[in-house]
Amino acid sequence: MAKNKGQRRPKATTPKGFRDYFGAEVTARKAMLDRIAAVYHRYGFDALETSAVETVEALGKFLPDVDRPNEGVFAWEEEGDWLALRYDLTAPLARVAAQYRNDLPTPYRRYAMGPVWRNEKPGPGRFRQFYQCDADTVGAASVAADAEICAMLADALEEVGIPRGDYVIRVNNRKVLNGVMEVAGILDPSDPSKFEAERGIVLRAIDKLDRLGVEGVRALLGEGRKDESGDFTKGAGLGDAQASIIMSFVQVNETAQKQLVRLSRSVPEETGSQLRVAAYDSNKHVDAGWRDEVTSKIWNRQVLSVLMDISGQSEIGAEGVKELAEIANLLHAQDYGPDRIIIDPSVVRGLGYYTGPVYEAELTFEIKDEKGRPRQFGSVAGGGRYDDLVKRFTGQAVPATGVSIGVDRLLAALAAKGRLDNSAQGPVVVTVMDRTRMADYMRMVGELRAAGIRAEMYLGNPKNFGNQLKYADKRQSPVAIIQGEDEAAREVVQVKDLILGAKLAQEATLEEWKSQPAQVEVPRADLVATVRGILDRHK
Amino acid sequence: MAKNKGQRRPKATTPKGFRDYFGAEVTARKAMLDRIAAVYHRYGFDALETSAVETVEALGKFLPDVDRPNEGVFAWEEEGDWLALRYDLTAPLARVAAQYRNDLPTPYRRYAMGPVWRNEKPGPGRFRQFYQCDADTVGAASVAADAEICAMLADALEEVGIPRGDYVIRVNNRKVLNGVMEVAGILDPSDPSKFEAERGIVLRAIDKLDRLGVEGVRALLGEGRKDESGDFTKGAGLGDAQASIIMSFVQVNETAQKQLVRLSRSVPEETGSQLRVAAYDSNKHVDAGWRDEVTSKIWNRQVLSVLMDISGQSEIGAEGVKELAEIANLLHAQDYGPDRIIIDPSVVRGLGYYTGPVYEAELTFEIKDEKGRPRQFGSVAGGGRYDDLVKRFTGQAVPATGVSIGVDRLLAALAAKGRLDNSAQGPVVVTVMDRTRMADYMRMVGELRAAGIRAEMYLGNPKNFGNQLKYADKRQSPVAIIQGEDEAAREVVQVKDLILGAKLAQEATLEEWKSQPAQVEVPRADLVATVRGILDRHK
Repeated sequence: MAKNKGQRRPKATTPKGFRDYFGAEVTARKAMLDRIAAVYHRYGFDALETSAVETVEALGKFLPDVDRPNEGVFAWEEEGDWLALRYDLTAPLARVAAQYRNDLPTPYRRYAMGPVWRNEKPGPGRFRQFYQCDADTVGAASVAADAEICAMLADALEEVGIPRGDYVIRVNNRKVLNGVMEVAGILDPSDPSKFEAERGIVLRAIDKLDRLGVEGVRALLGEGRKDESGDFTKGAGLGDAQASIIMSFVQVNETAQKQLVRLSRSVPEETGSQLRVAAYDSNKHVDAGWRDEVTSKIWNRQVLSVLMDISGQSEIGAEGVKELAEIANLLHAQDYGPDRIIIDPSVVRGLGYYTGPVYEAELTFEIKDEKGRPRQFGSVAGGGRYDDLVKRFTGQAVPATGVSIGVDRLLAALAAKGRLDNSAQGPVVVTVMDRTRMADYMRMVGELRAAGIRAEMYLGNPKNFGNQLKYADKRQSPVAIIQGEDEAAREVVQVKDLILGAKLAQEATLEEWKSQPAQVEVPRADLVATVRGILDRHK
Repeated sequence: MAKNKGQRRPKATTPKGFRDYFGAEVTARKAMLDRIAAVYHRYGFDALETSAVETVEALGKFLPDVDRPNEGVFAWEEEGDWLALRYDLTAPLARVAAQYRNDLPTPYRRYAMGPVWRNEKPGPGRFRQFYQCDADTVGAASVAADAEICAMLADALEEVGIPRGDYVIRVNNRKVLNGVMEVAGILDPSDPSKFEAERGIVLRAIDKLDRLGVEGVRALLGEGRKDESGDFTKGAGLGDAQASIIMSFVQVNETAQKQLVRLSRSVPEETGSQLRVAAYDSNKHVDAGWRDEVTSKIWNRQVLSVLMDISGQSEIGAEGVKELAEIANLLHAQDYGPDRIIIDPSVVRGLGYYTGPVYEAELTFEIKDEKGRPRQFGSVAGGGRYDDLVKRFTGQAVPATGVSIGVDRLLAALAAKGRLDNSAQGPVVVTVMDRTRMADYMRMVGELRAAGIRAEMYLGNPKNFGNQLKYADKRQSPVAIIQGEDEAAREVVQVKDLILGAKLAQEATLEEWKSQPAQVEVPRADLVATVRGILDRHK
């Protein structure tokens, strides 16, 4: 085939599932990541950029026991070693934490931003290369590290342009759920491998609360559930008593709310109204903001008390509730109340993976879905504690906790809120009327650039002047500069306001056309000042 | 093997030839690239970020005619297609220019920054993943595009911190050399394939001028050359007349200088001294800067005149000289004189690859080499015109010109000049004296962060206070905050100036210790102001 090199033209296309990013797509993402990085830096996190390529052995998930390890990663063999593109930023962190364990500070706070690669079936909006943005603390057992990351996540969201009230960070704890499972008799601390299948079904069932509702989850905990199409999903087979313990966990928020409302009727009116406010706000899941610190503390305390009622008989459950209380306490100390960060046992996503506190950032404003129906924007970041990060390399357990922001999701959210910095910022275009006077045009461009104004000379074939204006249009240029022989002789230039011109062309009356000329002739010496004036007017 | 997964611990190491970048290594590079991007943006260039993975077919250089295309690239087979990591940013640009040719503006100015991968033998300072930073204009036949990129490169170098006078951009033209070859009778425009081997040897010989000197190059043009070790390198076998034409090209700068000096003796003294200044400055290769625009124009004109003498009989040679004159003219119009950008026929690097103007940015200040000898820093960027970029995809020739900055070289240069922004910027560390008062410490950290001060609470095991100060040391913290039970009761904090402390520990007298206490006790309410004051003092 190599012999026939010249015979067939190669296809100019990205590989399936990959894409290119142009102009503002690149700079808007970069601007967002820069803002996040500034917050992470302020929190004492250090940048880390690992190589895109890792050994398959270090990545861990995949071993070359078959012909090649192609499940989920892009991998290839290199002089007997299997190499692969990283599929996330956590596996490389684990490798780094082990490799440099004698040199890195303990704890090691690091952030990382960059592309990762997944060898998965691409779909609409799903690409095989995409950005991740992570922050992790390695080597800190204290839940103060978890609290810190939640606070940092809140700051980062506000910094990129999600206003307070439009997001909420929900915190739960794997240990609490383990406690509930223990109380329900489907987790035996002395033999954790027992009932594993049942626990898996329970986790998946709880995760479907939003979709199936209380009845649906209850059915999946018992014998099973038949959906509308008649398909039957086998359940966990729990007895009534067991299932109702799990259901009480699923409904902690509702219980806490009812308790607060009931309590409010038996106390003096002033306290009572505070309790009702706390209960009411919780019901709206923070949307309206919390009246004051007192009511927010009441809410967290009430939720924690219900959780303790359910799981406190179990040692691990009590520990989990205590950790959540500590997190709430540390966050309150910095004025991160439940208007931003809330203890919420309904967060179960990722509970199967994490070992302690988990957290999820959700955007609470509504957008329209494909069919025009309003829906909540949903999750943009998540994380938690995973204490086995470094163990597979060194044999030593190292506590770690971290968060990952969904870069594309967050960009989409900012776009939906009109907060994306993707203004076109086209350049001023100096047109070429007279090919022998390129040096003059270049000098104009040079003056504009020296004044900090984005500018270019038209570098295509200048013969057809219409093409030059079409080019300026394609570039979304705010201003075009024109100087023909006649203007040059009179030492003037024509300055054409393309933004105003487009507006006038669409909607102006004859009078407006006359009173607001989109093109002005000014002395050559006034070029920069005139352009600056137009740009300032359109800011 | 997968069965024994748990048996053997994986090695925590990067693959051979790859490395990780920590903290300031990441942020200093990013800061430099951000500054360059701002200049490129001002020049009207748009960001482009292509995927790291391309089809081997689109990358072009490599075809799967053997078992796998592993020469120079990292490649693997994916469902019958060969994919590879990009080895530069130009090949993806060619693919993009072809793929989106109906949507992109013409000309298309784009910049790209990011890692590329080379499957080459790693060596000291040579890695298999490294950054490139490119800017190209696709679809502009005018050498105004080349002139623009040279001006932009000069601006970019100054923007990142290379002062004027410490760099020079040399411009040459492949066409001039082709003209010289034609005049010397080793290029036949009607059959360019003739004498290809000879021309290859001539190019390589000219490239060795710095190392072998005039005599050495002359020998390689003729029969050949024996080096000190006695090894013989076969020459191009040119006749005396042919060789002397090539040699006159190699020595254009010297000839232009001699002519200027001779001319200066036959004209009135005022003009004469100007000519001598131009000649003198050229000899020092711009180091001292050029006296004024007149002398710099004289120099360029003299060089171009010598070039025309040598290659003007050839059509392509004359065209090349005319293009260089046009570039010089366009640059002069924007006040880029030879103190920054100079016509220099001695630039031959890359002449084999490019088809028109070529340019190279060289840093002219001295650094010490490994053996402590002073040497010029050398090249940090290069580029030129390559008009076959898109042709292999579409069959249509598309003119293009562009530059690539050697990111690691430029970073090394900034480091050598002390202009690298890699200040450690360690965080203020709030120590944990009393584990039950974490919320109080967290509140201190929160206040510092809210004031924009980088800060963290110690998150390791607080038992051993010495470890906390060791940690602050490792983090290069400027300040540590201490509040034990006693201080808390009195509502004060201890603020420890770690930078002053380190200085005093090294060199202070007892009096200085007393007069400049490195640790002060201040009211809790003054925490932020006190820290701010210390940080400002150390700025």
